[in-house]
Amino acid sequence: MTLYIGLDLGGTQVRAVVAEGIAGGSAGGYPPPRLLGDASRPTPATGRPDDVIAALADASRAALESADRELHDVVGVGCAAPGPLDHHRGIVHVAPNIPGFERVPLADRLSAGLDGTPVFVDRDTVIAAIGEGMAGAARGERDYVYVTVSTGVGGAIVSGGRMLRGATNTAGELGHWPVALEGPRCGCGSYGCVESFAGGRNLAQQFGSRDAGEVFRAARGGDERARALVARAEAALTNLAIGLVNGLNPSVIVVGGGITEHEPQHVLEPMRRGIRARAFSIPAAAVRVVPAALGSDVGMVGAVLAAQERAAGRGTWFA
Amino acid sequence: MTLYIGLDLGGTQVRAVVAEGIAGGSAGGYPPPRLLGDASRPTPATGRPDDVIAALADASRAALESADRELHDVVGVGCAAPGPLDHHRGIVHVAPNIPGFERVPLADRLSAGLDGTPVFVDRDTVIAAIGEGMAGAARGERDYVYVTVSTGVGGAIVSGGRMLRGATNTAGELGHWPVALEGPRCGCGSYGCVESFAGGRNLAQQFGSRDAGEVFRAARGGDERARALVARAEAALTNLAIGLVNGLNPSVIVVGGGITEHEPQHVLEPMRRGIRARAFSIPAAAVRVVPAALGSDVGMVGAVLAAQERAAGRGTWFA
Repeated sequence: MTLYIGLDLGGTQVRAVVAEGIAGGSAGGYPPPRLLGDASRPTPATGRPDDVIAALADASRAALESADRELHDVVGVGCAAPGPLDHHRGIVHVAPNIPGFERVPLADRLSAGLDGTPVFVDRDTVIAAIGEGMAGAARGERDYVYVTVSTGVGGAIVSGGRMLRGATNTAGELGHWPVALEGPRCGCGSYGCVESFAGGRNLAQQFGSRDAGEVFRAARGGDERARALVARAEAALTNLAIGLVNGLNPSVIVVGGGITEHEPQHVLEPMRRGIRARAFSIPAAAVRVVPAALGSDVGMVGAVLAAQERAAGRGTWFA
Repeated sequence: MTLYIGLDLGGTQVRAVVAEGIAGGSAGGYPPPRLLGDASRPTPATGRPDDVIAALADASRAALESADRELHDVVGVGCAAPGPLDHHRGIVHVAPNIPGFERVPLADRLSAGLDGTPVFVDRDTVIAAIGEGMAGAARGERDYVYVTVSTGVGGAIVSGGRMLRGATNTAGELGHWPVALEGPRCGCGSYGCVESFAGGRNLAQQFGSRDAGEVFRAARGGDERARALVARAEAALTNLAIGLVNGLNPSVIVVGGGITEHEPQHVLEPMRRGIRARAFSIPAAAVRVVPAALGSDVGMVGAVLAAQERAAGRGTWFA
């Protein structure tokens, strides 16, 4: 039996799944892998690499146990981590939401903690894009963009069947494409970023609420300040969508993330309207804006598929 | 003797050059080809495909004559044309600055007008990016962006050594990436585009002058309205630069075009400052913003090199 582990290293929790290998190559994509076991652990608040890696290994072993499987049947481990990171060497440069977790050779150290099982690390949005491209809403597409609208806004670009990596493998930070000439300071230190307007954390902060859900509820209730913030978030996402269509000419823009899931009419709809009204007609006619198909499992499914592809030496598809 | 013709189909003139083939492959680039002959013709005001193609063929033959060479020694013709177009089949869908020139099978018809010599058509900004990448400021780079700031603003993206084409080959319209939430109407029908603020035609129109040069001169002379327009153009280009760095992580951004050439302190400098101040540190440290090296010859050099590469079957580099 050929097993894979998928891992997601998030700011608040670490999640692990176990899945069987799926027959078939990467061309045309896969059905989503069936997840046999699942486990999660809180992300250690210390952010110490030792603690975080122990939590990842522990969640992996717990997921195996929940599936009644053995580590020696695991061929590869895929791990989604916050970026920027070096996916070739599996080194996390900085993890913005895990203070202290910097310059960590995550792949090598986690592999050592899992009896030498090969570990393949990649950025969380890249992993999500791999999941959606191989088994989700962009299955079979060669030119697509994955955008997540959640606490933050991020993305990954696939062009001509290849993940766009850039010179130092940090490409795809679409949440920090400036779409306004002024605006509130963004967490990244800049201003005018898509995320500064449409990211959940920033929306909540600007409204003075606990979370972004409150902002959308207040807007529905007629609160003028909330409505203005939501309208501005929509305008920022619309600019991003038009820019992606004119600049990258994708056949699909897959939009995931919690805000997209809960408020599609404030994410998908304005993006579609903006493209129809303002993008060039040829690329506008060629693109679909669709919700992510894998939901909250996208990171796990992507990590399993990334592990399977890279363990099989087919990593060039997204390398 | 192996000769190539490079052609540039512009809104006001058609230009042709003749160059000898250059030894060496595409890896690492070429020295700029030596141009042996040169000719130009006004672009027919009728925009009729017959007239435009006749002008292109005529300029080609005149360039050969000026070089004292023969058409039968020409191995391939590269032609830069306004987009959107289909570079595989050599069909121009629309040429915004040549009214009437629509849905033209340019490669086939021009080839017929040049005794069957193979003609390779590509978008003007793509041709410029090929020129700068193979023999100019981005020589040897695998991840670079070409931006032109001129009458309009355009671009082309090379990632991992490949021209980013998109689903329908219109990728790279960076002048129409929205970088503001409001602004004057752009020629493309949208608003907030980089070009709506920084394109020479729009700048001149907004100031009420004949050309953009007057706007920059007035700004230097202390005119407040001109200074505000120039500052806004700089802010738009800065947002584009930051977005390119965060989104695409190039090692070089090559900036060409007439405005860049004449007003580098209002184009290159704000882009560099903005990246330093506001882009993510890892991609910001990895990128250089440099002026185009091939000047006004960029289209001709690019067309010659594109012809040579495609005639030799090495077109995948930029296909």
